[in-house]
Amino acid sequence: MATFGDIGVAAAFNIFGALIFLIAFAFLRLQPFNDRVYFPKWYLKGLRSSPSHSGTFVNKFVNLDWRSYIRFLNWIPDALKMPEPELIDHAGLDSAVYLRIYLLGLKIFVPITLLAWAIIVPVNWTNKTLAQLSQGDAGLTYSSIDKLSISNVPFGSPRFWTHVVMAYVFTFWTCYALTKEYEKIAVMRLHFLASEKRRPDQFTVLVRNVPPDPDESVTECVEHFFLVNHPDHYLTHQVVINANKLAQLVEEKKKKQNWLDYYQLKYSRNRGKRPMAKTGFLGLSGDKVDGIDYQTAEIERLTKEIAEERKRVKTDPKCIMPAAFVSFKTRWGAAVCAQTQQSRNPTVWLTEWAAEPRDVFWANLAIPYVSITIRKLMAAVAFFFLTFFFMIPVSAVQSLANIESIEKRLPFLTSIVEQPFIKAFVQGVLPGLALKIFLIVLPTILMMMSKFEGFLSISALERRAAFRYYLFNFVNVFLVSIIAGSALSQLDTFIKQSPKEIPETIGVAIPMKATFFITYVMVDGWAGVAGEILRLKPLIFFHLKNFFLVKTEKDREEAMDPGSIGFNTGEPQIQLYFLLGLVYAVVTPVFLPFILVFFALAYMVFRHQIINVYNQEYESAAAFWPDVHGRIVYALIFSQIILMGLMGTKGIYEAPPVLIVLPVLTICFHLYCKGRYQPAFVRYPLQEAMMKDTLERTREPNLNVKGYLQQAYIHPIFKDEEDDEDEGFNMKLHDSATVPTKRQQSRKTTPVPSKFSGGSSPALPEHDHEGSLS
Amino acid sequence: MATFGDIGVAAAFNIFGALIFLIAFAFLRLQPFNDRVYFPKWYLKGLRSSPSHSGTFVNKFVNLDWRSYIRFLNWIPDALKMPEPELIDHAGLDSAVYLRIYLLGLKIFVPITLLAWAIIVPVNWTNKTLAQLSQGDAGLTYSSIDKLSISNVPFGSPRFWTHVVMAYVFTFWTCYALTKEYEKIAVMRLHFLASEKRRPDQFTVLVRNVPPDPDESVTECVEHFFLVNHPDHYLTHQVVINANKLAQLVEEKKKKQNWLDYYQLKYSRNRGKRPMAKTGFLGLSGDKVDGIDYQTAEIERLTKEIAEERKRVKTDPKCIMPAAFVSFKTRWGAAVCAQTQQSRNPTVWLTEWAAEPRDVFWANLAIPYVSITIRKLMAAVAFFFLTFFFMIPVSAVQSLANIESIEKRLPFLTSIVEQPFIKAFVQGVLPGLALKIFLIVLPTILMMMSKFEGFLSISALERRAAFRYYLFNFVNVFLVSIIAGSALSQLDTFIKQSPKEIPETIGVAIPMKATFFITYVMVDGWAGVAGEILRLKPLIFFHLKNFFLVKTEKDREEAMDPGSIGFNTGEPQIQLYFLLGLVYAVVTPVFLPFILVFFALAYMVFRHQIINVYNQEYESAAAFWPDVHGRIVYALIFSQIILMGLMGTKGIYEAPPVLIVLPVLTICFHLYCKGRYQPAFVRYPLQEAMMKDTLERTREPNLNVKGYLQQAYIHPIFKDEEDDEDEGFNMKLHDSATVPTKRQQSRKTTPVPSKFSGGSSPALPEHDHEGSLS
Repeated sequence: MATFGDIGVAAAFNIFGALIFLIAFAFLRLQPFNDRVYFPKWYLKGLRSSPSHSGTFVNKFVNLDWRSYIRFLNWIPDALKMPEPELIDHAGLDSAVYLRIYLLGLKIFVPITLLAWAIIVPVNWTNKTLAQLSQGDAGLTYSSIDKLSISNVPFGSPRFWTHVVMAYVFTFWTCYALTKEYEKIAVMRLHFLASEKRRPDQFTVLVRNVPPDPDESVTECVEHFFLVNHPDHYLTHQVVINANKLAQLVEEKKKKQNWLDYYQLKYSRNRGKRPMAKTGFLGLSGDKVDGIDYQTAEIERLTKEIAEERKRVKTDPKCIMPAAFVSFKTRWGAAVCAQTQQSRNPTVWLTEWAAEPRDVFWANLAIPYVSITIRKLMAAVAFFFLTFFFMIPVSAVQSLANIESIEKRLPFLTSIVEQPFIKAFVQGVLPGLALKIFLIVLPTILMMMSKFEGFLSISALERRAAFRYYLFNFVNVFLVSIIAGSALSQLDTFIKQSPKEIPETIGVAIPMKATFFITYVMVDGWAGVAGEILRLKPLIFFHLKNFFLVKTEKDREEAMDPGSIGFNTGEPQIQLYFLLGLVYAVVTPVFLPFILVFFALAYMVFRHQIINVYNQEYESAAAFWPDVHGRIVYALIFSQIILMGLMGTKGIYEAPPVLIVLPVLTICFHLYCKGRYQPAFVRYPLQEAMMKDTLERTREPNLNVKGYLQQAYIHPIFKDEEDDEDEGFNMKLHDSATVPTKRQQSRKTTPVPSKFSGGSSPALPEHDHEGSLS
Repeated sequence: MATFGDIGVAAAFNIFGALIFLIAFAFLRLQPFNDRVYFPKWYLKGLRSSPSHSGTFVNKFVNLDWRSYIRFLNWIPDALKMPEPELIDHAGLDSAVYLRIYLLGLKIFVPITLLAWAIIVPVNWTNKTLAQLSQGDAGLTYSSIDKLSISNVPFGSPRFWTHVVMAYVFTFWTCYALTKEYEKIAVMRLHFLASEKRRPDQFTVLVRNVPPDPDESVTECVEHFFLVNHPDHYLTHQVVINANKLAQLVEEKKKKQNWLDYYQLKYSRNRGKRPMAKTGFLGLSGDKVDGIDYQTAEIERLTKEIAEERKRVKTDPKCIMPAAFVSFKTRWGAAVCAQTQQSRNPTVWLTEWAAEPRDVFWANLAIPYVSITIRKLMAAVAFFFLTFFFMIPVSAVQSLANIESIEKRLPFLTSIVEQPFIKAFVQGVLPGLALKIFLIVLPTILMMMSKFEGFLSISALERRAAFRYYLFNFVNVFLVSIIAGSALSQLDTFIKQSPKEIPETIGVAIPMKATFFITYVMVDGWAGVAGEILRLKPLIFFHLKNFFLVKTEKDREEAMDPGSIGFNTGEPQIQLYFLLGLVYAVVTPVFLPFILVFFALAYMVFRHQIINVYNQEYESAAAFWPDVHGRIVYALIFSQIILMGLMGTKGIYEAPPVLIVLPVLTICFHLYCKGRYQPAFVRYPLQEAMMKDTLERTREPNLNVKGYLQQAYIHPIFKDEEDDEDEGFNMKLHDSATVPTKRQQSRKTTPVPSKFSGGSSPALPEHDHEGSLS
């Protein structure tokens, strides 16, 4: 068991680490040559361009204005200042709602922390159980943290009723906060959808499993079917083409082009020596050839192949998938078609809302529907094995957390490990870090699984990957940390127990693992989030690319790697903190402030990142909220069951029956929320559709919807082809489609970083610039 | 443990009982004065009327034609002869599909029985485990039935692989039979819906939770909403009125009228004495008054009250519920409205398919939607307690099954109980009978629960009650019989086991309880079904009523009690047999023939009853099939888990992992079936709707749909009012709406029972009559 001192050292480490990250960030972001790393969002929106050539040469790279360094923490108020509606305009509803998850964490846990410290901590502290036990025969060592936890209350004490009552209070508060939030977000979503501009996906439905017809092509078949069954509403359609091979070729060509650029640059710097390359695997084996010539030949070959493939794809009926994007004259017609069953046979003519064009995951549209069931099964089995076998290495690493086991197994290390500083380090930082490294590769695997499963939109892919990641975290971070650790320290007595006693096993282990999870929160939560803002990897890569490859402004544009929120990794992480917070709220309230710091820090950091960095890849209008809500409710129920198990071992036999009401009530609450709010995230009400249709008809009676929709759902490969000539024009079009923010005007006229404001964040409104001058 | 002899005695008892019922039925049904008890369906359809007055007076009551008695078993071929399409015309799709459940039982279990007897029985029989054990120290007694079961295979024997392989074979066969049946029934349903005549529910949607509007009445509000949101399709609507009090008054009046009739009849027979009645509780207390005068006064009072209430209901806005039946111009419009969400707020403007007018459960339409969630929770809790506390008396009765425990507790009974005949009776008949009595009151309670829960159609009520009844049967008949019996005989060792070992506990107990369930099948299945055909209760009641009350032909019509299939009790009973059959198929194959006899007998009996007796109360077009299918799949999975548990104790440690694949595959199969066939039972495809609309428009271009629908969904209370004058006319209208069967013509011209055919079933076609003459 770690003492307050150990925790203090670990906290100092992590706070120090986090501070270094934050200070480094505060310094680096002020340098103009890092501008594209720390403010890419503004470049993408076209509201900012490369530093102007006014000023000295040095000024272009280094910020010499000393005043700006004084206010190096300014980014925090700047990040918090942008009001929510503007944030929605600026970064989309998804991002704004994503931030609200952190806010929800604060809303739930601030009152819980206050109550827990005001009531539970004194109740726990004023006992002497642990002190007595440590004097007894058991020779138990305990830390002062344990004195604040439920372990310090004597067996059978009526004081446990405090914990039972507080469990009720916490549950009601959490449910209340969840309802309020669900309601608010449902309103935000509906408001967002209602106030939105015309979007192709409002009119479009994706039809899958068009039944094969010997006499008609797919496109004729679709047209006839919808002309017959939706005669008043059908407008046009776009058959889905399997262009995966074409996309692959284009990708390959792009890679070769990159290499060619690289070789040419190399040659231009060192005229004497033609760059050589090997043709084999990764350029490590095979014949040595002239790099420039080889790549040029390859590109020519690929260009030809692409042209052929492009022709083939358009004519070959094998490339035409039995699926189509069907567009309707009105939103009403699309809403009707998306929500109804079309045909007798429920496995053909399947309709669903089309995703936003940029959200569509084109590669998966080519997957035949029949194989999807099998793919789902295979993905489930694969995930099961992944979760199961991952446990082995994690358990091994976990055993390191126990300093005594190191001494036992590697006795020669005892003298080193016993030094207080190293002991604290090993106990405080290692286990969290090891776990983190394990978890870094995981999201990629999970995304691949989701892709394999055949989801049709990026948002759905990410939601699925997030669900899997959460499950994985739950089993491999939470459960394994608790049970494996306990199993080692309690001599495997628990392992072979029956499922009925699992809540007790976990419940008993929970207070003992509090210190481990405190260090985990500090490493993963505090330092991890602080590291996020520094963006070390994009920073390095940008400068490498900038140095080696960038020739034109467009190259520089491409060298930027703004990244995105990463719902599939970020949300499960937050959920783990919700789970930990709810589980420890009653048991070890000393845990709660650590969670609060995480939520507050992460909220600030991600708000800054969303405003200044991340690129919005799609807009699902907060479609992920039911998932978020459901997982918090799950964590709540889990915490109640664990508490029940724990109470069962504490000699208060009336407590478990009283506590069993809680999960029942929570499940009812969940069902109520599901009925009340979930439809707002799944279906599109006809009333809404009709209202928007009517409004539009009145405002723009001569609108040509068909022209608007005709090209909306063309595979991006073919779009590129058409746009090849006028890419710039298209870019501009796309930009003008985004909603201009209020400060667009001022931004464009202000050279950034301006000399006056000294590189304070672009999120700073104009009047603030003036304010800082006065 | 019972021996073959015991089983033989029990079987003899039950077969004897069943035979008595069948012979009594064969005799009674030939008597003309029982005609309305055994052939009410034909009276209801208007294809048969009271015995004609030709012939002697005796002939009207007793059948004196000796030839008809010779062929007293003729009802069986007669019942089987009617082809299925005609049966659907005659008794509706629900009835025809209900019969197919029994057929499905035969389809599944005939091949399984043959295979089990050909393979498993020899494998079990040719071992000597039980013989050796009984000679050993344990002193175990065993019966010859156990020698045929899995208990006879020695521990760790490789012979158990036969059982594993057979479990696979049985699972695949069952799944195959289930798919075929699901497919067939989905086709039947769609065909039925497609070939059906115009029905009001095809055009109508029930809208609930119309939001209150301060400026508009409910009817205006509904009209405006649908005119705006379904402008091209909305036709008319009918607001739901809370007429429950009115219905109550009408009911009361009817009762008083009955009493008046009774007193008048009494008075007319005994002119000297005015019949007296007491006004208090149940006519047992209170003042004595003149019966006729009192009832006449009461009826007058009620008539007045009814008139007032009728007026009030129509004008009082409090009686108008925020719900309405909204009718559309086309089926397409109704299908769209029923399947889509109407409003932003998903808890208002809820739409669902309207049930058939005669299927609507009017009393529940008045329940406000908000209270339904609470009602559901309350019903669930009540059901939980019902299931839980029912266990206590059942367990007590179960302990009687064990003759040794009787001898232990009541030693003075030993001499009586030890007599072989009584011993067999106690062991064979008592436990099944006791259980049956417990279960008789249950369906009424469960139906009340469903009504309380607020389902809107009788079919939904019955489906819910069936689901609960099945759960109840599963816990209180199946599990309690197995575990309580085992717990008593194995000295409570199993009771405190962990849930992980439950499959093992049950698995081990299963072969031991085979004899109990065999007797249960004989009592509940064989004798019970044979009793069903005799219709003892309706027979007695009809003759009592006929003797005391009937004055006119209409009274006699009302005295008939045709009953209905009773899905809420019948289906769970069949499901229990499916469960038993699947569980015992591998373990104790000797059980299977008993199940087969049940399915065959029940099929014949219920086919006869459906053709000749039961009145069709509603037509849900086999909407219950997904429930039936789901429960059989559940039974299959349960049987697999139990087998796994059993195998775990048999020393074959590779068997459980091999068997665990089975439930996984079965769940996948279930999901596949759900995706493939279930939508056909829940949603109404637009293609279908459009086809029927188009057809109708072509055939009847001038059809007045509005006129057709205007009065369709008026509360039956108000319909009565309008029909009061021309009830007879209305009856005729209703009759002509039923599809005429092929033999309608011949039936009307043939006096029934004719002298030639000697009262053979009316299901006998005309050419058969001739056949029996030649």
